[in-house]
Amino acid sequence: MKKIKRAIISVFDKTGILEFAKVLVNEFEVEILSTGGTGIILEKSGISYTKISDFTETPEMFNGRIKTLHPRIEGGILFRRGLKKDIDEAEKYNIKPIDMVVCNLYQFKEAIEKPGIELDDALEMIDIGGPTMIRAAAKNFPDVIVVPSPEYYNEIISEMRKNKGAITENTRLLLAQDVFSIMADYNAAIANFLQKFYNPSSIFPNTLIKVYEKVQNCRYGENWDQEAAYYKDTSSNYGLHQLKQLGGKEISFNNYLDIDSCMRILLDFGTQHNVTAILKHTNPNGVAIDKKDQLTAIKKAFSTDPLSVFGGIWGVNKELTKEVADFIVNKEKIFLEVLLAPSFEKEALEILKQKRNLIIIEFKEFLTKRNNIYKNLEIRGVLGGALFQEYDYKPVIKEWNVVSRRKINEAEKEALIFAYRVSKWAKSNSACFAQIYDDGIYTLGIGAGQLSRVHVVKIAAQKAIEFGHKEELKGSFMGTDSFFPFPDGLEVAVESGAKAIINPGGSIRDKEIIKRADELGCALIFCGKRVFRH
Amino acid sequence: MKKIKRAIISVFDKTGILEFAKVLVNEFEVEILSTGGTGIILEKSGISYTKISDFTETPEMFNGRIKTLHPRIEGGILFRRGLKKDIDEAEKYNIKPIDMVVCNLYQFKEAIEKPGIELDDALEMIDIGGPTMIRAAAKNFPDVIVVPSPEYYNEIISEMRKNKGAITENTRLLLAQDVFSIMADYNAAIANFLQKFYNPSSIFPNTLIKVYEKVQNCRYGENWDQEAAYYKDTSSNYGLHQLKQLGGKEISFNNYLDIDSCMRILLDFGTQHNVTAILKHTNPNGVAIDKKDQLTAIKKAFSTDPLSVFGGIWGVNKELTKEVADFIVNKEKIFLEVLLAPSFEKEALEILKQKRNLIIIEFKEFLTKRNNIYKNLEIRGVLGGALFQEYDYKPVIKEWNVVSRRKINEAEKEALIFAYRVSKWAKSNSACFAQIYDDGIYTLGIGAGQLSRVHVVKIAAQKAIEFGHKEELKGSFMGTDSFFPFPDGLEVAVESGAKAIINPGGSIRDKEIIKRADELGCALIFCGKRVFRH
Repeated sequence: MKKIKRAIISVFDKTGILEFAKVLVNEFEVEILSTGGTGIILEKSGISYTKISDFTETPEMFNGRIKTLHPRIEGGILFRRGLKKDIDEAEKYNIKPIDMVVCNLYQFKEAIEKPGIELDDALEMIDIGGPTMIRAAAKNFPDVIVVPSPEYYNEIISEMRKNKGAITENTRLLLAQDVFSIMADYNAAIANFLQKFYNPSSIFPNTLIKVYEKVQNCRYGENWDQEAAYYKDTSSNYGLHQLKQLGGKEISFNNYLDIDSCMRILLDFGTQHNVTAILKHTNPNGVAIDKKDQLTAIKKAFSTDPLSVFGGIWGVNKELTKEVADFIVNKEKIFLEVLLAPSFEKEALEILKQKRNLIIIEFKEFLTKRNNIYKNLEIRGVLGGALFQEYDYKPVIKEWNVVSRRKINEAEKEALIFAYRVSKWAKSNSACFAQIYDDGIYTLGIGAGQLSRVHVVKIAAQKAIEFGHKEELKGSFMGTDSFFPFPDGLEVAVESGAKAIINPGGSIRDKEIIKRADELGCALIFCGKRVFRH
Repeated sequence: MKKIKRAIISVFDKTGILEFAKVLVNEFEVEILSTGGTGIILEKSGISYTKISDFTETPEMFNGRIKTLHPRIEGGILFRRGLKKDIDEAEKYNIKPIDMVVCNLYQFKEAIEKPGIELDDALEMIDIGGPTMIRAAAKNFPDVIVVPSPEYYNEIISEMRKNKGAITENTRLLLAQDVFSIMADYNAAIANFLQKFYNPSSIFPNTLIKVYEKVQNCRYGENWDQEAAYYKDTSSNYGLHQLKQLGGKEISFNNYLDIDSCMRILLDFGTQHNVTAILKHTNPNGVAIDKKDQLTAIKKAFSTDPLSVFGGIWGVNKELTKEVADFIVNKEKIFLEVLLAPSFEKEALEILKQKRNLIIIEFKEFLTKRNNIYKNLEIRGVLGGALFQEYDYKPVIKEWNVVSRRKINEAEKEALIFAYRVSKWAKSNSACFAQIYDDGIYTLGIGAGQLSRVHVVKIAAQKAIEFGHKEELKGSFMGTDSFFPFPDGLEVAVESGAKAIINPGGSIRDKEIIKRADELGCALIFCGKRVFRH
């Protein structure tokens, strides 16, 4: 490890640079080279430095486009200190070693977030000299320290203090690696910007670059023998990483999958009424809305399938009340894995925290950020690649076509939309029977993950009957996530008690399906939007 | 548009460079600047050029680490041709305009694929000068043309011929955008290499960068109102992009999801016996293996649920025979969406092509590439981020614990592993009843996507009965993807006819479960590996 003797400082983000430079100069007698903008700040504080233009004997040119791009700078960074040939050349051509490069880049990402940014202004924010210096220093990390962000200043100083003005190889490597990550992200942002600027209608560029930052290692993945980790997408300001854990054990891989599904359901139902969604294995197990009361919604959703809620995940869309906490923990003693709410009444939290393993998550304003969350693309990994698509965020009803003779009123319409919405979030093929009660609507039976339409309708009805909803099935509302290929699914639904059914329509047998609905006296709505979820 | 007068050529990949340079010089009288290695080639062919070191009046240094990093080069690329101040400065400091940058980079990715590469050699392959020049040219694309790959040479020449030696703004932009994509990918590869080199045990770096290249726009996404596209992961040599479509309509988003699931099942079963997997909505609908005959496997898998195969996807692991094609198309007239095989008998293909919409896919050696395919990470998108994990590629049997009093023989063991393997690929919770026949094993009933263990066992048994397998259920083999939380699921399986059951074990009630198995005279195996799939 060698003592740092000469450092170049050229930073766009000036945070903390003064304090850092002071320590370099005063404690370690480092010679500072600096460019115009950074130099002015140093000068004001009486920190002595050498101007780059004096060092290179070449002026800054073209409004700063050319400052450091010079053999004396790049060579001083790049030559190999352990190679006689390099040392001789450096001496011969008067190339002095530069041991440290402190440099962060023009903030391209921040610049292009300004609405209506002009192309010229964006191009001006593409840094050329900075990337060259930090990449050169990172390449030569066995001899040179690169400091690409203010977040490292404290660490660097404390290490220099420990090591008599030197930096360990391990730190040099970590910094070098970070430089290449930063550069990948930086260049990806520029490529994506140019793509969108010139071709705003195409959301699928030829090259799509995703940069992920690790949030957490998971104890294991989907199964016990898979290693896993959870990452944030650096291009998304909104996402699960904003959720705040208030209690309970570490969030697992499968918990994240469930939390994701739960948040999507809550985003879909919005904040108008009290909504409760209970999930298992990313599928809804019971859902209810209540226009007056949260506890009633909880009870109703719970009643759909009180067997499968075991180990499930529960979400509500409004502050979780003491009564609800009491119902779950004390009254019904329900074992659940995760509980999500925008906020918790103080006493509710106290009750819930008695369950030490229960993962309690507060998501605050998340439900109001729907547009921000869904403006990115959804990714589905496949072997050796990925499918990208727009999120399925559009209204579940594209058009309201009552195709049967039997008509329906407003309350019935609301119940049908509810049933269809739930079927959207159950894995395909899915079906959901729902019923209206005093101040709300709830699920009687949900079928998921089936390979034929008729099977899933049967399963949804069976489950409703198994858990005591046989009477309520009479005159119920059924939604299913795609069209009936044959009339059998519709027949099962009506036999089970449905008086109105919603699906997208679009089967080559639609006419036959409508005829059958009319024969059976059932209302039938084609809503024009399929809601598959695989 | 301005005529190109001066170009710098500095390429690592010399493909086509001679022909390209000849045209520039002979047809368009472009002045060529060139570095050492590239220059030698030009010289040999009698193409006149100016040495960079003469142009900059500075020698190449440090084994080529410093060649082009000079204000006369970078300034000549970067100054704004439309700005008086820049033009004046360029004249004052003797900076001559460089209108075109032809440059491709040291092949870092290729270099690190060599087994046992030394760190020094890898670092040497990190290009610094090249990226600086092409990024500078890309930033200044309103005035400069950047040519970052030989694939563009023909296009550039034909455009110059059309436009009297000039290049349109649109092309300049496309090239510029490609530069930033290339640089993102290049830097990502370096960051990932350094991470792995120094920390080979950690497969989850702090920053994870994925670069995707578009293979195809999809007509729509998972649903009709979602836009979508399919991409290849540039870090994966093996994947679905290798599959070759021999016939049928365009592959849809949901087709890709199904193809992906089908290939994973086939990869899991391997190539020892004849295997057929039929899928719907990414779930297995029927699976069979036959030690002698492909057609028998097809018939058996078809028999599991001949209703839901409607619109399904079929895969086989060996060359698809004429008999199978005849069975599907002529005999049973089955409507299927996709058919996958490593290869097709000539007559089989002729029969299949009669179905003009049928997507026929040949996947050749794919099944032998298991290790290559699974060495990457699996990605699961969540809101604002992603979960990464190792693929679930390990053997489905971690240990073979017969925990019941009833023991089993080798043939029974094989049937249990078969059932467990199928349950792995059905969405959680899943269950599969299987039975042995003459020369093989096949599925009697598969349950998928359920929210409780007992429900999925019921559904699997119901489906078996519905499609005529009631007799075969007696003495059948059942696999289910996780442990029994209560004895009820096991009871239903035995009542339905299962004589042996496999699951991972791991429930707090395992003892109770084992006791119940013994009471019911059922064999019970705990295999130590859970096979959830959400």
